[in-house]
Amino acid sequence: MFEWHKATIQVETRGKGLHNITPQLEGAIREWGIRNGILHIFIQHTSASLVVNESYDPSAREDLEAFMDHLVPEGQSYFRHTLEGADDSPSHMRAMLTTTSLSIPVDDGQLSLGTWQGVYLFEHRRQPHARKILLRGMSVD
Amino acid sequence: MFEWHKATIQVETRGKGLHNITPQLEGAIREWGIRNGILHIFIQHTSASLVVNESYDPSAREDLEAFMDHLVPEGQSYFRHTLEGADDSPSHMRAMLTTTSLSIPVDDGQLSLGTWQGVYLFEHRRQPHARKILLRGMSVD
Amino acid sequence: MFEWHKATIQVETRGKGLHNITPQLEGAIREWGIRNGILHIFIQHTSASLVVNESYDPSAREDLEAFMDHLVPEGQSYFRHTLEGADDSPSHMRAMLTTTSLSIPVDDGQLSLGTWQGVYLFEHRRQPHARKILLRGMSVD
Repeated sequence: MFEWHKATIQVETRGKGLHNITPQLEGAIREWGIRNGILHIFIQHTSASLVVNESYDPSAREDLEAFMDHLVPEGQSYFRHTLEGADDSPSHMRAMLTTTSLSIPVDDGQLSLGTWQGVYLFEHRRQPHARKILLRGMSVD
Repeated sequence: MFEWHKATIQVETRGKGLHNITPQLEGAIREWGIRNGILHIFIQHTSASLVVNESYDPSAREDLEAFMDHLVPEGQSYFRHTLEGADDSPSHMRAMLTTTSLSIPVDDGQLSLGTWQGVYLFEHRRQPHARKILLRGMSVD
Repeated sequence: MFEWHKATIQVETRGKGLHNITPQLEGAIREWGIRNGILHIFIQHTSASLVVNESYDPSAREDLEAFMDHLVPEGQSYFRHTLEGADDSPSHMRAMLTTTSLSIPVDDGQLSLGTWQGVYLFEHRRQPHARKILLRGMSVD
Protein backbone atom coordinates (compact mmCIF):
# COMPACT_ATOMS: atom_id res chain seq x y z
CA MET A 1 0.00 0.00 0.00
CA PHE A 2 1.37 3.35 -1.06
CA GLU A 3 1.85 5.68 1.91
CA TRP A 4 3.48 9.07 2.39
CA HIS A 5 4.93 10.09 5.74
CA LYS A 6 6.19 13.47 6.93
CA ALA A 7 8.41 14.59 9.76
CA THR A 8 10.67 17.53 10.52
CA ILE A 9 13.71 17.07 12.69
CA GLN A 10 15.52 19.91 14.39
CA VAL A 11 19.24 19.68 15.05
CA GLU A 12 20.93 22.01 17.54
CA THR A 13 24.43 22.64 16.23
CA ARG A 14 27.34 23.92 18.30
CA GLY A 15 29.62 25.50 15.72
CA LYS A 16 31.17 24.26 12.50
CA GLY A 17 31.33 20.57 11.86
CA LEU A 18 29.61 17.30 11.02
CA HIS A 19 26.64 16.14 13.12
CA ASN A 20 25.50 12.54 12.70
CA ILE A 21 21.74 12.45 12.02
CA THR A 22 21.54 8.74 11.09
CA PRO A 23 19.79 7.73 14.36
CA GLN A 24 16.99 10.29 13.79
CA LEU A 25 16.48 9.04 10.23
CA GLU A 26 16.32 5.41 11.36
CA GLY A 27 13.96 6.43 14.17
CA ALA A 28 11.53 8.03 11.68
CA ILE A 29 11.49 4.93 9.48
CA ARG A 30 10.82 2.67 12.46
CA GLU A 31 8.07 4.94 13.80
CA TRP A 32 6.36 5.11 10.38
CA GLY A 33 6.74 1.36 9.94
CA ILE A 34 8.06 1.64 6.38
CA ARG A 35 9.23 -1.76 5.09
CA ASN A 36 10.21 -0.84 1.54
CA GLY A 37 10.41 2.51 -0.18
CA ILE A 38 12.57 5.60 -0.05
CA LEU A 39 13.48 8.39 2.35
CA HIS A 40 13.80 11.91 0.94
CA ILE A 41 15.83 14.32 3.10
CA PHE A 42 15.86 18.08 2.55
CA ILE A 43 17.65 20.69 4.66
CA GLN A 44 15.99 24.13 4.73
CA HIS A 45 19.18 26.16 5.10
CA THR A 46 21.86 27.82 2.99
CA SER A 47 24.68 27.74 5.54
CA ALA A 48 24.33 24.10 6.59
CA SER A 49 24.10 21.09 4.29
CA LEU A 50 23.87 17.31 4.00
CA VAL A 51 26.69 14.81 3.54
CA VAL A 52 26.82 11.01 3.43
CA ASN A 53 30.23 9.94 4.66
CA GLU A 54 32.48 7.76 6.79
CA SER A 55 30.90 7.00 10.15
CA TYR A 56 33.46 4.68 11.69
CA ASP A 57 36.69 6.54 12.35
CA PRO A 58 36.33 10.02 13.94
CA SER A 59 39.65 11.10 12.37
CA ALA A 60 38.09 10.79 8.89
CA ARG A 61 35.43 13.27 10.01
CA GLU A 62 38.01 15.65 11.42
CA ASP A 63 39.88 15.56 8.10
CA LEU A 64 36.70 16.42 6.21
CA GLU A 65 36.11 19.40 8.49
CA ALA A 66 39.72 20.61 8.17
CA PHE A 67 39.61 20.13 4.41
CA MET A 68 36.57 22.42 4.09
CA ASP A 69 38.45 25.15 5.96
CA HIS A 70 41.33 24.81 3.49
CA LEU A 71 39.16 24.55 0.37
CA VAL A 72 36.91 27.51 1.24
CA PRO A 73 39.02 29.86 3.36
CA GLU A 74 37.38 32.72 5.22
CA GLY A 75 38.39 36.32 4.67
CA GLN A 76 39.20 36.31 0.94
CA SER A 77 39.69 39.81 -0.46
CA TYR A 78 37.03 39.37 -3.16
CA PHE A 79 34.19 38.56 -0.70
CA ARG A 80 31.49 41.23 -0.71
CA HIS A 81 28.85 39.58 1.48
CA THR A 82 30.57 40.23 4.82
CA LEU A 83 28.00 42.08 6.97
CA GLU A 84 26.95 38.91 8.81
CA GLY A 85 30.51 37.85 9.62
CA ALA A 86 33.59 36.36 7.98
CA ASP A 87 32.05 32.87 8.09
CA ASP A 88 28.83 33.84 6.26
CA SER A 89 29.78 33.85 2.58
CA PRO A 90 32.08 30.81 3.00
CA SER A 91 29.15 28.98 4.61
CA HIS A 92 27.06 29.40 1.43
CA MET A 93 30.01 28.22 -0.68
CA ARG A 94 30.44 25.12 1.48
CA ALA A 95 26.72 24.38 1.27
CA MET A 96 26.92 24.72 -2.53
CA LEU A 97 29.78 22.18 -2.75
CA THR A 98 27.98 19.59 -0.64
CA THR A 99 24.22 19.02 -0.98
CA THR A 100 20.74 20.09 0.11
CA SER A 101 18.70 17.01 -0.82
CA LEU A 102 19.32 13.26 -0.54
CA SER A 103 17.21 10.20 -1.36
CA ILE A 104 18.07 6.92 0.36
CA PRO A 105 16.38 3.54 -0.27
CA VAL A 106 14.59 1.75 2.58
CA ASP A 107 14.59 -2.06 2.49
CA ASP A 108 13.26 -4.54 5.06
CA GLY A 109 12.50 -1.67 7.43
CA GLN A 110 16.06 -0.31 7.34
CA LEU A 111 17.80 2.64 5.72
CA SER A 112 20.00 0.96 3.08
CA LEU A 113 23.29 2.64 3.93
CA GLY A 114 26.61 0.97 3.17
CA THR A 115 28.63 -0.56 5.99
CA TRP A 116 30.67 2.59 6.66
CA GLN A 117 28.11 5.23 5.70
CA GLY A 118 26.46 7.72 8.01
CA VAL A 119 24.28 10.73 7.15
CA TYR A 120 25.52 14.05 8.47
CA LEU A 121 24.35 17.60 8.83
CA PHE A 122 27.35 19.80 8.04
CA GLU A 123 27.12 23.05 10.00
CA HIS A 124 29.10 25.80 8.27
CA ARG A 125 28.58 28.67 10.77
CA ARG A 126 30.62 29.23 13.93
CA GLN A 127 27.66 30.08 16.15
CA PRO A 128 25.14 27.49 17.40
CA HIS A 129 22.04 27.19 15.22
CA ALA A 130 18.74 25.32 15.26
CA ARG A 131 18.58 23.55 11.88
CA LYS A 132 15.46 22.10 10.29
CA ILE A 133 15.54 19.01 8.10
CA LEU A 134 12.44 17.74 6.30
CA LEU A 135 11.96 13.97 6.06
CA ARG A 136 9.52 12.46 3.57
CA GLY A 137 9.09 8.73 3.69
CA MET A 138 7.46 6.81 0.85
CA SER A 139 6.22 3.29 1.61
CA VAL A 140 5.58 1.16 -1.48
CA ASP A 141 4.29 -2.13 -0.02
CA MET B 1 -4.79 10.28 -5.06
CA PHE B 2 -1.39 9.47 -6.49
CA GLU B 3 -0.62 11.60 -9.52
CA TRP B 4 2.47 12.19 -11.64
CA HIS B 5 3.01 15.46 -13.47
CA LYS B 6 5.59 16.42 -16.08
CA ALA B 7 6.92 19.69 -17.38
CA THR B 8 10.09 20.95 -19.03
CA ILE B 9 11.24 24.50 -18.48
CA GLN B 10 13.71 26.26 -20.71
CA VAL B 11 15.99 28.94 -19.30
CA GLU B 12 17.79 31.37 -21.58
CA THR B 13 21.11 32.16 -19.92
CA ARG B 14 23.28 35.17 -20.68
CA GLY B 15 26.72 34.05 -19.63
CA LYS B 16 28.15 32.62 -16.42
CA GLY B 17 26.19 32.99 -13.23
CA LEU B 18 23.22 32.04 -11.07
CA HIS B 19 19.70 32.30 -12.52
CA ASN B 20 16.80 32.08 -10.05
CA ILE B 21 14.29 29.45 -11.25
CA THR B 22 12.16 29.36 -8.06
CA PRO B 23 9.21 31.22 -9.68
CA GLN B 24 8.99 28.65 -12.51
CA LEU B 25 9.05 25.77 -10.01
CA GLU B 26 6.30 27.35 -7.89
CA GLY B 27 4.31 28.05 -11.06
CA ALA B 28 4.42 24.37 -12.07
CA ILE B 29 3.21 23.23 -8.64
CA ARG B 30 0.32 25.73 -8.70
CA GLU B 31 -0.66 24.76 -12.23
CA TRP B 32 -0.62 21.04 -11.41
CA GLY B 33 -2.54 21.68 -8.18
CA ILE B 34 -0.23 19.52 -6.06
CA ARG B 35 -1.08 19.89 -2.35
CA ASN B 36 1.39 17.38 -0.89
CA GLY B 37 4.18 15.41 -2.47
CA ILE B 38 7.60 16.10 -3.94
CA LEU B 39 9.16 17.93 -6.85
CA HIS B 40 12.05 16.24 -8.68
CA ILE B 41 14.26 18.60 -10.71
CA PHE B 42 16.79 17.38 -13.28
CA ILE B 43 18.97 19.52 -15.55
CA GLN B 44 19.89 17.92 -18.89
CA HIS B 45 23.31 19.57 -19.26
CA THR B 46 26.94 19.04 -18.33
CA SER B 47 28.04 22.69 -18.34
CA ALA B 48 25.18 24.10 -16.26
CA SER B 49 23.93 22.77 -12.93
CA LEU B 50 21.50 23.21 -10.02
CA VAL B 51 22.12 24.95 -6.71
CA VAL B 52 19.89 25.73 -3.72
CA ASN B 53 21.23 28.85 -2.08
CA GLU B 54 20.77 32.29 -0.53
CA SER B 55 18.05 34.24 -2.31
CA TYR B 56 17.91 37.43 -0.23
CA ASP B 57 21.15 39.36 -0.61
CA PRO B 58 22.53 39.69 -4.18
CA SER B 59 26.08 40.07 -2.81
CA ALA B 60 25.95 36.49 -1.50
CA ARG B 61 25.20 35.36 -5.06
CA GLU B 62 28.05 37.43 -6.47
CA ASP B 63 30.42 35.86 -3.96
CA LEU B 64 29.33 32.36 -5.01
CA GLU B 65 29.99 33.23 -8.65
CA ALA B 66 33.41 34.75 -7.88
CA PHE B 67 34.28 31.78 -5.69
CA MET B 68 33.65 29.34 -8.54
CA ASP B 69 36.06 31.32 -10.75
CA HIS B 70 38.72 31.03 -8.03
CA LEU B 71 38.07 27.37 -7.20
CA VAL B 72 38.02 26.18 -10.83
CA PRO B 73 40.26 28.55 -12.76
CA GLU B 74 40.25 28.52 -16.55
CA GLY B 75 43.39 27.86 -18.55
CA GLN B 76 45.20 25.36 -16.35
CA SER B 77 48.18 23.77 -18.10
CA TYR B 78 46.91 20.21 -17.54
CA PHE B 79 43.59 20.76 -19.37
CA ARG B 80 43.33 18.66 -22.53
CA HIS B 81 39.69 19.28 -23.49
CA THR B 82 40.19 22.78 -24.92
CA LEU B 83 38.79 22.64 -28.48
CA GLU B 84 35.47 24.21 -27.44
CA GLY B 85 37.07 27.07 -25.55
CA ALA B 86 38.87 27.80 -22.30
CA ASP B 87 35.59 27.77 -20.36
CA ASP B 88 34.51 24.30 -21.53
CA SER B 89 36.43 21.88 -19.33
CA PRO B 90 36.03 24.16 -16.25
CA SER B 91 32.28 24.18 -16.92
CA HIS B 92 32.13 20.39 -16.54
CA MET B 93 34.20 20.61 -13.33
CA ARG B 94 31.85 23.24 -11.90
CA ALA B 95 28.83 21.13 -12.80
CA MET B 96 30.45 18.14 -11.08
CA LEU B 97 30.99 20.11 -7.84
CA THR B 98 27.40 21.33 -7.69
CA THR B 99 24.48 19.06 -8.68
CA THR B 100 22.31 17.76 -11.51
CA SER B 101 19.26 16.51 -9.58
CA LEU B 102 17.30 17.89 -6.63
CA SER B 103 14.18 16.69 -4.79
CA ILE B 104 12.18 19.23 -2.80
CA PRO B 105 9.09 18.48 -0.66
CA VAL B 106 5.76 20.14 -1.48
CA ASP B 107 3.43 20.86 1.44
CA ASP B 108 0.09 22.69 1.46
CA GLY B 109 0.53 23.55 -2.20
CA GLN B 110 3.92 25.20 -1.68
CA LEU B 111 7.53 24.25 -2.35
CA SER B 112 8.94 23.75 1.17
CA LEU B 113 12.02 25.91 0.86
CA GLY B 114 13.61 27.52 3.91
CA THR B 115 13.15 31.24 4.48
CA TRP B 116 16.31 32.26 2.66
CA GLN B 117 16.45 29.51 0.07
CA GLY B 118 16.06 29.89 -3.67
CA VAL B 119 16.67 27.35 -6.44
CA TYR B 120 19.17 28.39 -9.10
CA LEU B 121 20.41 27.26 -12.45
CA PHE B 122 24.18 27.86 -12.44
CA GLU B 123 25.37 28.62 -15.98
CA HIS B 124 29.05 27.77 -16.36
CA ARG B 125 29.63 28.86 -19.98
CA ARG B 126 30.36 32.42 -21.12
CA GLN B 127 28.04 32.35 -24.14
CA PRO B 128 24.23 32.47 -23.87
CA HIS B 129 22.57 29.06 -23.87
CA ALA B 130 19.05 27.62 -23.88
CA ARG B 131 18.99 25.21 -20.92
CA LYS B 132 16.40 22.49 -20.33
CA ILE B 133 15.27 21.45 -16.88
CA LEU B 134 12.89 18.52 -16.34
CA LEU B 135 10.30 18.87 -13.58
CA ARG B 136 8.47 15.82 -12.23
CA GLY B 137 5.80 16.46 -9.64
CA MET B 138 4.40 13.68 -7.47
CA SER B 139 1.10 14.33 -5.72
CA VAL B 140 0.36 11.96 -2.83
CA ASP B 141 -3.08 13.10 -1.60
CA MET C 1 -0.18 1.32 -12.32
CA PHE C 2 2.22 2.26 -9.58
CA GLU C 3 5.14 -0.18 -9.35
CA TRP C 4 8.39 -0.25 -7.43
CA HIS C 5 11.43 -2.10 -8.76
CA LYS C 6 14.73 -2.94 -7.08
CA ALA C 7 18.13 -3.92 -8.35
CA THR C 8 21.72 -3.73 -7.14
CA ILE C 9 24.53 -3.39 -9.61
CA GLN C 10 28.13 -4.14 -8.80
CA VAL C 11 30.94 -2.30 -10.55
CA GLU C 12 34.49 -3.63 -10.51
CA THR C 13 36.78 -0.61 -10.52
CA ARG C 14 40.44 -0.63 -11.49
CA GLY C 15 41.85 2.38 -9.70
CA LYS C 16 40.90 6.06 -9.61
CA GLY C 17 38.66 7.42 -12.31
CA LEU C 18 35.24 7.69 -13.93
CA HIS C 19 33.36 4.49 -14.91
CA ASN C 20 30.35 4.88 -17.19
CA ILE C 21 27.35 3.07 -15.65
CA THR C 22 24.72 4.43 -18.09
CA PRO C 23 24.31 1.08 -19.94
CA GLN C 24 23.51 -0.75 -16.67
CA LEU C 25 20.93 1.88 -15.72
CA GLU C 26 19.25 1.70 -19.13
CA GLY C 27 19.33 -2.10 -18.92
CA ALA C 28 17.47 -2.07 -15.60
CA ILE C 29 14.76 0.23 -16.96
CA ARG C 30 14.28 -1.97 -20.03
CA GLU C 31 14.17 -5.15 -17.96
CA TRP C 32 11.61 -3.68 -15.54
CA GLY C 33 9.57 -2.31 -18.45
CA ILE C 34 9.15 1.15 -16.90
CA ARG C 35 7.53 3.55 -19.38
CA ASN C 36 7.25 6.64 -17.17
CA GLY C 37 8.54 7.37 -13.72
CA ILE C 38 11.86 7.96 -12.05
CA LEU C 39 15.10 6.12 -11.31
CA HIS C 40 16.70 6.64 -7.90
CA ILE C 41 20.42 5.77 -7.74
CA PHE C 42 22.32 5.39 -4.46
CA ILE C 43 25.96 4.37 -4.03
CA GLN C 44 26.74 2.54 -0.77
CA HIS C 45 30.31 3.81 -0.39
CA THR C 46 32.24 6.70 1.09
CA SER C 47 35.29 6.55 -1.19
CA ALA C 48 33.44 6.31 -4.51
CA SER C 49 30.61 8.55 -5.69
CA LEU C 50 28.19 9.41 -8.49
CA VAL C 51 28.59 12.05 -11.20
CA VAL C 52 26.50 13.02 -14.23
CA ASN C 53 28.82 14.43 -16.84
CA GLU C 54 30.12 14.66 -20.41
CA SER C 55 30.00 11.31 -22.16
CA TYR C 56 31.17 12.22 -25.64
CA ASP C 57 34.80 13.31 -25.56
CA PRO C 58 37.18 11.17 -23.44
CA SER C 59 39.47 14.18 -22.92
CA ALA C 60 36.72 15.91 -20.90
CA ARG C 61 36.68 12.89 -18.60
CA GLU C 62 40.45 12.92 -18.26
CA ASP C 63 40.32 16.60 -17.31
CA LEU C 64 37.73 15.89 -14.60
CA GLU C 65 39.96 13.18 -13.16
CA ALA C 66 43.06 15.39 -13.24
CA PHE C 67 41.11 18.26 -11.72
CA MET C 68 40.11 16.14 -8.72
CA ASP C 69 43.78 15.32 -8.09
CA HIS C 70 44.57 19.04 -8.09
CA LEU C 71 41.57 20.11 -6.01
CA VAL C 72 42.02 17.43 -3.34
CA PRO C 73 45.72 16.65 -3.22
CA GLU C 74 46.95 13.62 -1.31
CA GLY C 75 49.47 13.91 1.51
CA GLN C 76 48.45 17.22 3.09
CA SER C 77 50.17 17.83 6.42
CA TYR C 78 46.87 18.33 8.30
CA PHE C 79 45.46 14.90 7.39
CA ARG C 80 45.04 12.66 10.44
CA HIS C 81 43.18 9.71 8.90
CA THR C 82 46.19 8.11 7.18
CA LEU C 83 46.29 4.51 8.46
CA GLU C 84 44.56 3.13 5.36
CA GLY C 85 46.83 4.93 2.92
CA ALA C 86 47.47 8.39 1.50
CA ASP C 87 44.47 8.11 -0.83
CA ASP C 88 41.96 7.29 1.93
CA SER C 89 41.08 10.66 3.47
CA PRO C 90 41.18 12.40 0.05
CA SER C 91 38.76 9.75 -1.23
CA HIS C 92 36.16 10.78 1.38
CA MET C 93 36.70 14.45 0.50
CA ARG C 94 36.17 13.73 -3.21
CA ALA C 95 33.03 11.75 -2.43
CA MET C 96 31.75 14.67 -0.34
CA LEU C 97 32.27 17.15 -3.21
CA THR C 98 30.42 14.99 -5.73
CA THR C 99 27.27 13.05 -4.76
CA THR C 100 25.89 9.83 -3.29
CA SER C 101 22.30 9.94 -4.60
CA LEU C 102 20.77 10.90 -7.95
CA SER C 103 17.19 10.86 -9.27
CA ILE C 104 16.69 10.78 -13.04
CA PRO C 105 13.32 10.92 -14.85
CA VAL C 106 12.26 8.05 -17.10
CA ASP C 107 10.07 8.91 -20.11
CA ASP C 108 8.81 6.66 -22.91
CA GLY C 109 10.89 3.81 -21.56
CA GLN C 110 14.16 5.78 -21.61
CA LEU C 111 16.35 7.46 -19.04
CA SER C 112 15.86 11.18 -19.81
CA LEU C 113 19.49 12.21 -19.99
CA GLY C 114 20.58 15.20 -22.05
CA THR C 115 22.37 14.62 -25.36
CA TRP C 116 25.87 14.73 -23.86
CA GLN C 117 25.13 13.31 -20.42
CA GLY C 118 26.34 10.02 -19.02
CA VAL C 119 26.13 8.69 -15.46
CA TYR C 120 29.44 7.74 -13.86
CA LEU C 121 30.75 6.00 -10.83
CA PHE C 122 33.77 8.00 -9.68
CA GLU C 123 36.27 5.68 -7.98
CA HIS C 124 38.50 7.63 -5.59
CA ARG C 125 40.80 4.82 -4.37
CA ARG C 126 43.91 3.58 -6.16
CA GLN C 127 43.22 -0.12 -5.61
CA PRO C 128 40.50 -2.08 -7.46
CA HIS C 129 37.21 -2.28 -5.57
CA ALA C 130 33.81 -3.97 -5.99
CA ARG C 131 31.29 -1.12 -5.66
CA LYS C 132 27.58 -1.54 -4.99
CA ILE C 133 24.98 0.81 -6.39
CA LEU C 134 21.29 0.52 -5.46
CA LEU C 135 18.73 1.19 -8.19
CA ARG C 136 15.09 1.89 -7.33
CA GLY C 137 12.72 2.32 -10.24
CA MET C 138 9.28 3.86 -9.81
CA SER C 139 6.76 3.26 -12.58
CA VAL C 140 3.80 5.65 -12.53
CA ASP C 141 1.65 4.46 -15.44
